[in-house]
Amino acid sequence: MQMPAVVLLSGGLDSATCLAIAKRDGFSPTCIAVDYGQRHRCELESAKNIAAAFNAELRIVSVDLRAFGGSALTQDIDVPKHRDESAITSEIPVTYVPARNLVFLSLAVAQAEVLGAQDLYIGVNQLDYSGYPDCRREFIESFGAAANLATKAGVEGTALRVQTPLIDLTKAEIIRLGTELGVDYGLTVSCYDPSDEGLACGACDSCQLRRRGFEQAGVPDPTRYA
Amino acid sequence: MQMPAVVLLSGGLDSATCLAIAKRDGFSPTCIAVDYGQRHRCELESAKNIAAAFNAELRIVSVDLRAFGGSALTQDIDVPKHRDESAITSEIPVTYVPARNLVFLSLAVAQAEVLGAQDLYIGVNQLDYSGYPDCRREFIESFGAAANLATKAGVEGTALRVQTPLIDLTKAEIIRLGTELGVDYGLTVSCYDPSDEGLACGACDSCQLRRRGFEQAGVPDPTRYA
Repeated sequence: MQMPAVVLLSGGLDSATCLAIAKRDGFSPTCIAVDYGQRHRCELESAKNIAAAFNAELRIVSVDLRAFGGSALTQDIDVPKHRDESAITSEIPVTYVPARNLVFLSLAVAQAEVLGAQDLYIGVNQLDYSGYPDCRREFIESFGAAANLATKAGVEGTALRVQTPLIDLTKAEIIRLGTELGVDYGLTVSCYDPSDEGLACGACDSCQLRRRGFEQAGVPDPTRYA
Repeated sequence: MQMPAVVLLSGGLDSATCLAIAKRDGFSPTCIAVDYGQRHRCELESAKNIAAAFNAELRIVSVDLRAFGGSALTQDIDVPKHRDESAITSEIPVTYVPARNLVFLSLAVAQAEVLGAQDLYIGVNQLDYSGYPDCRREFIESFGAAANLATKAGVEGTALRVQTPLIDLTKAEIIRLGTELGVDYGLTVSCYDPSDEGLACGACDSCQLRRRGFEQAGVPDPTRYA
């Protein structure tokens, strides 16, 4: 019997690759997608399609982060476009959603505990990471320690492991690995500001990092741009 | 100008006392109540009344923990009644909601970051704590470290402080302190299995701990029992 694992699936490129890695590692993954009031809601449709492609269960959990405000991804603040590369990787941008990965990981821990899963996959990446503090290894390690103290499983000695297989990879390396593992990146959406039809803007930080990744990987970019 | 703080308010006795302490400490509190699909939903009404009594803002955040299953508080599992005291304080009961405080604290951190609040109050208590692992000091301290690594504020050097003023108090001490600070415990609901009219069952773990607390504090118990 395959062991359970929880995979945080956003509908984007990184988390789709994570799901493929969890399958490669022999797990039976339950995917969690979070409906947090994001304006790029088409990513939830992408998450459904990606989970289906890997024959994995998907649970969509609703949490209304808009109640707190404070991010271009959940409020009516303009998404920055055409920023240069040094700005993309050095500043914390307005697209940062306060405590998003902290909240998402906590929800994943709740699901892991109910399933009896010890492994929890998240596609964070500290190289091409858009300057978000909650994508760094030191945060993930610290969170893992807290999660093990929070839970019945941790208290009873069954430690949770937060798996971050992409953390030190470049976007190009992620794309090459995912391509080998059969990820259909045409199903994934990375854009922070897609059209109503789900077409990528091509200009936000996320689109720029993604486009450059495909170029550097030498893999055809299946993204549908507006 | 008063400093902002975030207070996790459940509608119960402990968190109402925490709110009173945050006010005493000179903060302007924003309260967060979480609608997580709990069957004792009357506690959200209690949270509204308690926040109003302290003239504090309340934001109710919805997150559907029922999607994960696994607890008598969110599923159709019987709430244990008339357990003896040693069982109440030594075992992790079925009323434990997986990763609940981890999720709630993460939501509070998101709110704190948006408000620019450095202080976050939670009414956890490791004495009369019903055996929940996420009420222990070691968890809270570990979580605080992770939260500071997760957030823009933490990265920029403005550390969050997770305040747990009740952590070493007995239920009786909490009740005495709150009474001094003007908490109207008649507004609070602790029962895990109240009637539709919000009357307490008097027999679940939470009712037993509460009733004993009033007795030991020598304070009249305003609880409306079924």
